[in-house]
Amino acid sequence: MSHLHDVLQLRVRYSETDQMGTFYNSRALEWFECGRTELMRRRLGMSYAALEQKNIFLPLVEAHLEFQGGARYDDLLDIATTVEVSGRAKLRFGVQITQNANGKPVVHGYTVHAFADATGKPIRPPTWFLELMQKAAGPAAT
Amino acid sequence: MSHLHDVLQLRVRYSETDQMGTFYNSRALEWFECGRTELMRRRLGMSYAALEQKNIFLPLVEAHLEFQGGARYDDLLDIATTVEVSGRAKLRFGVQITQNANGKPVVHGYTVHAFADATGKPIRPPTWFLELMQKAAGPAAT
Amino acid sequence: MSHLHDVLQLRVRYSETDQMGTFYNSRALEWFECGRTELMRRRLGMSYAALEQKNIFLPLVEAHLEFQGGARYDDLLDIATTVEVSGRAKLRFGVQITQNANGKPVVHGYTVHAFADATGKPIRPPTWFLELMQKAAGPAAT
Amino acid sequence: MSHLHDVLQLRVRYSETDQMGTFYNSRALEWFECGRTELMRRRLGMSYAALEQKNIFLPLVEAHLEFQGGARYDDLLDIATTVEVSGRAKLRFGVQITQNANGKPVVHGYTVHAFADATGKPIRPPTWFLELMQKAAGPAAT
Repeated sequence: MSHLHDVLQLRVRYSETDQMGTFYNSRALEWFECGRTELMRRRLGMSYAALEQKNIFLPLVEAHLEFQGGARYDDLLDIATTVEVSGRAKLRFGVQITQNANGKPVVHGYTVHAFADATGKPIRPPTWFLELMQKAAGPAAT
Repeated sequence: MSHLHDVLQLRVRYSETDQMGTFYNSRALEWFECGRTELMRRRLGMSYAALEQKNIFLPLVEAHLEFQGGARYDDLLDIATTVEVSGRAKLRFGVQITQNANGKPVVHGYTVHAFADATGKPIRPPTWFLELMQKAAGPAAT
Repeated sequence: MSHLHDVLQLRVRYSETDQMGTFYNSRALEWFECGRTELMRRRLGMSYAALEQKNIFLPLVEAHLEFQGGARYDDLLDIATTVEVSGRAKLRFGVQITQNANGKPVVHGYTVHAFADATGKPIRPPTWFLELMQKAAGPAAT
Repeated sequence: MSHLHDVLQLRVRYSETDQMGTFYNSRALEWFECGRTELMRRRLGMSYAALEQKNIFLPLVEAHLEFQGGARYDDLLDIATTVEVSGRAKLRFGVQITQNANGKPVVHGYTVHAFADATGKPIRPPTWFLELMQKAAGPAAT
C-alpha cells in the first residue's frame, strides 16, 4: 500500500480561539481541510479546486477527532496529512496536528470522503484519478 | 419613507467567543445576517431562501460596524434590524444589537446590498419585489 | 442507566453553507455545542455558563461525526442530544441531527468531555454535579 | 506622518466560502486580523501575542468594509495592511485585499482599535509602544 504525505504549517488565528483560551474545537476540521488542500496541490499535482472543475467532489462522510493538547493564538502548528492510495470508493485522510515549536500533539484524527458529482450523487472514482494518485505515490514497497 | 423592522433574539455561542472573553468581531456580521433573514421571513412574508430560488441574490457590497460593548457566551442578545423601503437599486439594513437583559448596546452598524442574478451580475430590483416591500411596510406616514 | 435528553431547533445560517451548497462540515460541531448548551439549561437546571463560573470546565477530548445528508441555508434542523448519567470521569453526549420538515438524517455523532479547572487541569467530577444530573434524570428504570 | 506597511498572502479556505460560490462576508474581518498579526510580527518586531502578554490589548471598536469583487476557494489573495504611526489613543489599520493573480480588488476597508488592559478597561497607549512603532517606521519624510 502506498501513501501520499505532506506537512503544512499554519498559525492559530485569533478568530479560532475561544474563551477557554485555546482553539475552538471545530477549527480542527477546518485545519484538516487546509492539510488536504495542500497535500493534493503539492503531492498529487492537481489541486482540489481543479478536481471540482472536472465535476468531481469529495464530500466528507465521516470524521473523527481526538483532542490531545492546547494551541493558543499565534502558535505555529504542523498539520501532517496522509492519504492512502487504494482503489476503494472512498478516500481516507489521516491527520496529526502538532506544535511546531516542540512537537507536542494537538489533534489526531481522520476524515473519510466519498466521490460525488456536482449534484451530490455518488460516483465511482475515475480511473485517471486513481492512476494519478498511484503515480504520485511512486512504487509501493515490496 | 416606510420601513420594515424586526427584532430577533439569539444567544452567543461558545464558538463565537475568543480568548479576550467576549465575542470575536466577525460574528457580528453573521448576526446581522440572522437579523436580515428573520426580518424578511416575518415582515416581508418571503424568505431570502425563496428569493434566491427566484434567481434574485442580495450580495453584500458595504458593511459598517461600531463595537459598543461586550457580550459573553450564552448572553441573550436582541438583534434589531430595519430596512428602508425605497425604489433604489440597493437595500440598506440598519442594525442595533443590545443585551436583552439590560438593553446595553453591543454593536451598531449597517449593511448595503446590491441586487444580482445567480451569476453575480447586477440586476434592477424587480417591480414585484419592491411592491411586496411597500405592501409589507404599509402606508407611509404623511 | 439514566439519561438526559433534549431537542433544540435551529436554522442553517448562510455563513454556515459552503460552495457545495450544503453546510460546511465543521458547523456540525458548533451545532453539537448548541445542543449541549440547551440540554444543560433546560434539563439539568444549570447552564454551562454557570458551571464555568464555578470553575468547572468540560473541554472536548473526542468527537465523532457521520454525515448522513445535506442541509441548506434556512433549513430548520432538530438537534437531539442525549447525555448518559453515570459516575464516570467523562461525559459523553450523543447527537442526532435531522431535518425538521421530514425527519431525514443529517449528522450523527458524539462528543466526549473531560472535567477540568480553569487552568485546564483535569479534576474529578464534583459530587454535587453528579447528584444534580442524577436528580434531573429521575429514577432509573429497574 | 509615518506608516508601517505589510503584505500577507493567504488562500481562501473551503470553510470560508458560502453557497453563493464566493467567500462569506465575515471572513474578510478574519483576514484583516491575519494582516494585522503579520504586520506587527514582521514590521514592528513585536507580535500581538507578545503585546497581550504585557497586558496590552487592542479591542476592535470600529470596522468598515467595501466588497469589491469575488474570491473563490483556493484563490491566492494579497492582504495589504497599513497602520498609521501617531501618538493618538487609537490605532487605525487600513486594508486592501486583492487577487494575487491579477491584482483585482476584493475588499477594501479599515479597523480602528482602542488600547485596553486585560479587563477591557481603556488605557493610554504606553510610551514604549509608541516609540517602538516610530522606530520601526523610520524617519518621516520632511
